[in-house]
Amino acid sequence: MQVGTGGGGEPAAGLLLVSERAGSSLLRPGICRAQRRCDALLGTPRPGSPVLRIRCDAEGSRWPALDADEGYVLGLGPDGGTLEATEPWGVLHGLERLVQLVYHGGGRLPALRIEDGPRHPWRGLLLDLARHFLGLDALLRTLDAMAALGLNVLHLHLNDDQGFALECPRRPALHRRSGVHGFLSLEASERLVVEAAARGIRVVPELDVPGHAGAIVHAYPELAAGAPPERLPRGFGPSRHALDPTLPETWALLDDLLDDLVALFPDPWLHLGGDEVHPEVYAFDDARRRAWAAERGLTDPHAVQAWFTGELVARAAVRGRRVVGWDEVLHPDAPEALAVQCWRASDTLEAALAAGHDALFSAGWYLDLFYPARLHYAFDPAAGPDALRHTEEAMLDEPSLAPVRAGIEGVWRMAADLRTRPSSRRGRLLGGEACLWGELVTAELLDVRLLGRLPAVAERLWSPPERCDAADFRRRLPGVLAFLEATTPCRPLTGAVPGLLRLGVRVEELAPVQAFLSLLEPLRWYRRLLGPSALDARLAGEGGPARARPRDADSPLVDPADLIPPESLGLLELADALARPEARGARLKAQAARWRRLPDELAEPFERLPALAALAPLAEALPPLADALDRWLDGGSDRPPTVLPSDTSVPEAAETELALVRVLAGTAP
Amino acid sequence: MQVGTGGGGEPAAGLLLVSERAGSSLLRPGICRAQRRCDALLGTPRPGSPVLRIRCDAEGSRWPALDADEGYVLGLGPDGGTLEATEPWGVLHGLERLVQLVYHGGGRLPALRIEDGPRHPWRGLLLDLARHFLGLDALLRTLDAMAALGLNVLHLHLNDDQGFALECPRRPALHRRSGVHGFLSLEASERLVVEAAARGIRVVPELDVPGHAGAIVHAYPELAAGAPPERLPRGFGPSRHALDPTLPETWALLDDLLDDLVALFPDPWLHLGGDEVHPEVYAFDDARRRAWAAERGLTDPHAVQAWFTGELVARAAVRGRRVVGWDEVLHPDAPEALAVQCWRASDTLEAALAAGHDALFSAGWYLDLFYPARLHYAFDPAAGPDALRHTEEAMLDEPSLAPVRAGIEGVWRMAADLRTRPSSRRGRLLGGEACLWGELVTAELLDVRLLGRLPAVAERLWSPPERCDAADFRRRLPGVLAFLEATTPCRPLTGAVPGLLRLGVRVEELAPVQAFLSLLEPLRWYRRLLGPSALDARLAGEGGPARARPRDADSPLVDPADLIPPESLGLLELADALARPEARGARLKAQAARWRRLPDELAEPFERLPALAALAPLAEALPPLADALDRWLDGGSDRPPTVLPSDTSVPEAAETELALVRVLAGTAP
Repeated sequence: MQVGTGGGGEPAAGLLLVSERAGSSLLRPGICRAQRRCDALLGTPRPGSPVLRIRCDAEGSRWPALDADEGYVLGLGPDGGTLEATEPWGVLHGLERLVQLVYHGGGRLPALRIEDGPRHPWRGLLLDLARHFLGLDALLRTLDAMAALGLNVLHLHLNDDQGFALECPRRPALHRRSGVHGFLSLEASERLVVEAAARGIRVVPELDVPGHAGAIVHAYPELAAGAPPERLPRGFGPSRHALDPTLPETWALLDDLLDDLVALFPDPWLHLGGDEVHPEVYAFDDARRRAWAAERGLTDPHAVQAWFTGELVARAAVRGRRVVGWDEVLHPDAPEALAVQCWRASDTLEAALAAGHDALFSAGWYLDLFYPARLHYAFDPAAGPDALRHTEEAMLDEPSLAPVRAGIEGVWRMAADLRTRPSSRRGRLLGGEACLWGELVTAELLDVRLLGRLPAVAERLWSPPERCDAADFRRRLPGVLAFLEATTPCRPLTGAVPGLLRLGVRVEELAPVQAFLSLLEPLRWYRRLLGPSALDARLAGEGGPARARPRDADSPLVDPADLIPPESLGLLELADALARPEARGARLKAQAARWRRLPDELAEPFERLPALAALAPLAEALPPLADALDRWLDGGSDRPPTVLPSDTSVPEAAETELALVRVLAGTAP
Repeated sequence: MQVGTGGGGEPAAGLLLVSERAGSSLLRPGICRAQRRCDALLGTPRPGSPVLRIRCDAEGSRWPALDADEGYVLGLGPDGGTLEATEPWGVLHGLERLVQLVYHGGGRLPALRIEDGPRHPWRGLLLDLARHFLGLDALLRTLDAMAALGLNVLHLHLNDDQGFALECPRRPALHRRSGVHGFLSLEASERLVVEAAARGIRVVPELDVPGHAGAIVHAYPELAAGAPPERLPRGFGPSRHALDPTLPETWALLDDLLDDLVALFPDPWLHLGGDEVHPEVYAFDDARRRAWAAERGLTDPHAVQAWFTGELVARAAVRGRRVVGWDEVLHPDAPEALAVQCWRASDTLEAALAAGHDALFSAGWYLDLFYPARLHYAFDPAAGPDALRHTEEAMLDEPSLAPVRAGIEGVWRMAADLRTRPSSRRGRLLGGEACLWGELVTAELLDVRLLGRLPAVAERLWSPPERCDAADFRRRLPGVLAFLEATTPCRPLTGAVPGLLRLGVRVEELAPVQAFLSLLEPLRWYRRLLGPSALDARLAGEGGPARARPRDADSPLVDPADLIPPESLGLLELADALARPEARGARLKAQAARWRRLPDELAEPFERLPALAALAPLAEALPPLADALDRWLDGGSDRPPTVLPSDTSVPEAAETELALVRVLAGTAP
């Protein structure tokens, strides 16, 4: 969904939203919410205020569904207008668009007519509640942001090695033993599903099995395929915790969990994981399990997992549910009804579609990699295999990814065996999902981490393919974040302030500290998550067990690298100004002056706060950069195209880099 | 409650809170909340982390009550410590103190032992849900702030002329007809009471009768003493809408409402209003009502209201409830069991206490008057009549109040008849309440409007009388607001940003706009609410019907004067720096440079945004002030005591003043 440009018309004194089907219980909360947001922008409507008449003939189903009609027609003028849609979901999208137009119109109702609707029916966001529980409040406010961006699927990754984040009434041992760091209670999951539906958003729960099962086998050690953990795992990285598929008790548990998921989540789709099952776990070496496998003709670990998947899909089907799995579920034995979520590389999307599976795209949209929005924006999953692979390759040219290029290629190699498949698409591309894995995410950090890049994925999934001008998107992005900050409970712009204060920054120091941090960006890809030793192993292409990583699920996430957004809006604006030095010379001069003062202004907090002091080398690098900018500006028509040579090295400290250098060197954005 | 100084000890890796009475259902949510806040500061506890053992022998009553034991003893050291209290309410206060110590200790557990408890048992905040409904989310986050500040009564002003903000099951016409702008549903009021209790906070509902009854008689026009309103009143200012006490139907309504209030709010206290009943309304001119009054020996309007109050107190008493009323309920016929909330002047407090009533102090603590915190901090209700009156008189010396001095004295005159009463205190001073009347308040504006001054009242009600150093309080205030911003959902520091964005400020303009607005403060007292014509009438001492006011309850509150805090923290810091120019010279020079640049930096938003452009004259006044500051700094030891002469005039525009001038002239703070 594009945030439109507004303007025109007279300032409106309130806008009254009137539904001509007063009885639609589904729409009432959505209309009330839009009314409140309009009131905050325009004032409360009075007699004589403009009126927007909402027409929607269908009462609609109780829950949003894949392939519902989400289109709408919005006609606006100074006296109000009409919003028409076939189904309530279209009305909800139209209301979001209305609020955006009012916001960007500066209190005026523009005169226009919009026919709009999404390109793909499955436009999702994965949030990971297992590595760090996020809590109902954070999920609810994220629903508001998703609705504003036109996303319609909240995919909840509910369990992993580190936690089981859902109360399952038939198996309370799971949340009681393995949800100690937080879980969705029955009331919370019910509320979440209802509030999501009121925004046209489906909630798709993910039970990740048979791997990533540390939290499950912590509660049920007798179901572990290998050795169960002695305590709830806290470390990150690949584990060998998996369910033993040969035990009837495993299937009794899974039947109970399927029953619970079906009772709690009305959506006809379930995600049942299937990723990263270590092959050695299913290379059975005892007689009983070898006999079990032989009976079923399962000759290798992949066949065992494929059998597991097939069994699970069948058990979901009798409960009226279709299943999505991660792209490791691709196997000649996989039932065609299984949908596949592509995460390792675009090749897996093509392989899934070629094999007749419906598919979701997520490779390229991993928001936990600290990439800037433009990299995610470049991926169009409908563009076909050659274009997608080209986008992937082009991403490697991004200078900030140079240090981890080998690691990125290593992930692609994990799926290399799928590259040989034919490329005709027999299955259906349903859409895709942005994925924010939670190792380095907490509820406090969520808004700043997520919302700066989520609009890129959301627009790609909603808008027509020709809407792909990255420079135009970049110019609109600050307005999108401002809209979210101004009209939803989300805080993409100010969300870091509480964390800076917890770090010990004083109120009067906030302005210089924020000015400084806006020149930095966190290290990209898995450099922060893996840490130096595990990173080196990955880059060297080494497999084997995970090396020591710097953090586990109990580590405090309170460093500046945790708090700053993966992409600095201030640097986007700087890049814009550098492109127009004639128009923005005074502003650039003022910025240079500010950089020069920052080391002095930061002396006190650096002295007091070790976490901030670790960044002092980056602050000390600023005065020469300010000098360089001044000289460049003074160069007039003789100045070179960039302030710094393109090969200028980028200083790093405390898991951040002085991204300002990339902007001055013209290598970003 | 004082936010303590921290420091000392080793950095703690998590802190585990352990209650030795695991069964206390009352404490569990409070301990969980404190644990989460500690985790965000220190990380999740691990084996070996410091442990705080919580001891509280009494299970405690289900609801907090006046005169509960709220004291606690907190002992801390690097290995953790103990928190002991007689009742759970003391534990809750101790946990708040603990989180503050952890926050201010920069991740270290200080070694200390604190015996603490409140000075007054009734430490309240009035929020007005009738002029603008605030909504459950805003109320819930305010409970967090109240708990952090040691306040223990949330007084809800539920009805007024402009709205009836509570669902009353026996009389649904009230919220259906007069709660159209928002009301607390049954679920919301239940949730509010439960969440308040989990923070040791009582919820005292106010049904404001017999005056301020516009919303009630809009729903029940047949019960109006005069002419009922044709539609729900939106205008502010004194009205003549009151209940007719002579009708049995009025008492049937009041009986139903008392039953509903008793069912919804467990606290044994009810507030039943009683303020500002216009005497002419009860000067009955028809035979039936004159006979009714004569039968009861009611010879004047005040006697009629006193009879009404007595009847209401009796009907509350049979329901097990004690009653508080505004200080107009003082009357020789008033039952002694009636408690009195003093609002017009300190004289009414003395009159109430002298007459044997228990009393609450609120005069001096009206937070809707846009006063700086120091004025509210000066009032100690226990100090006795002479000291209180002296504080009132001294307030008039505040230069920023000079334009409205006559108006303030006019309010005092309203209660002048009470001044002659003897001054011995027979009743009991229960404590007091900060009052934030809601004409110019919305949920979006609440945090910024309320929280900069609420700590002043909270500390006065909690701390011993000798804790009254205003300069010390001023130095601690930014830290208190930082604590609230960092560890609660409240946003006293960043809460204005969404409103600035709604105003049309762009992301890249936020920094200069905020820097500029931090030099301004809104006009004080009722200058904004009344507007020029009604203000002039008040200052001239004219009575009669209210003159035209600039806003009603439907007006958008989106101007800079709505968004900025009543007191600028930036100016408090500037005043501190001016007192130490030797130490802060570089920072002051940088500030002067910033002021000089601001008119240029603001040129674009001024051109685009009329609401901001109205402040342009104040921005244009900045460069000469920057020059003056530079000259003063350069003057070295010869410089005068203040940058500007103390009689320098203070520019005003768009309901704000350039408060910077007061700081430079040494007349604030």
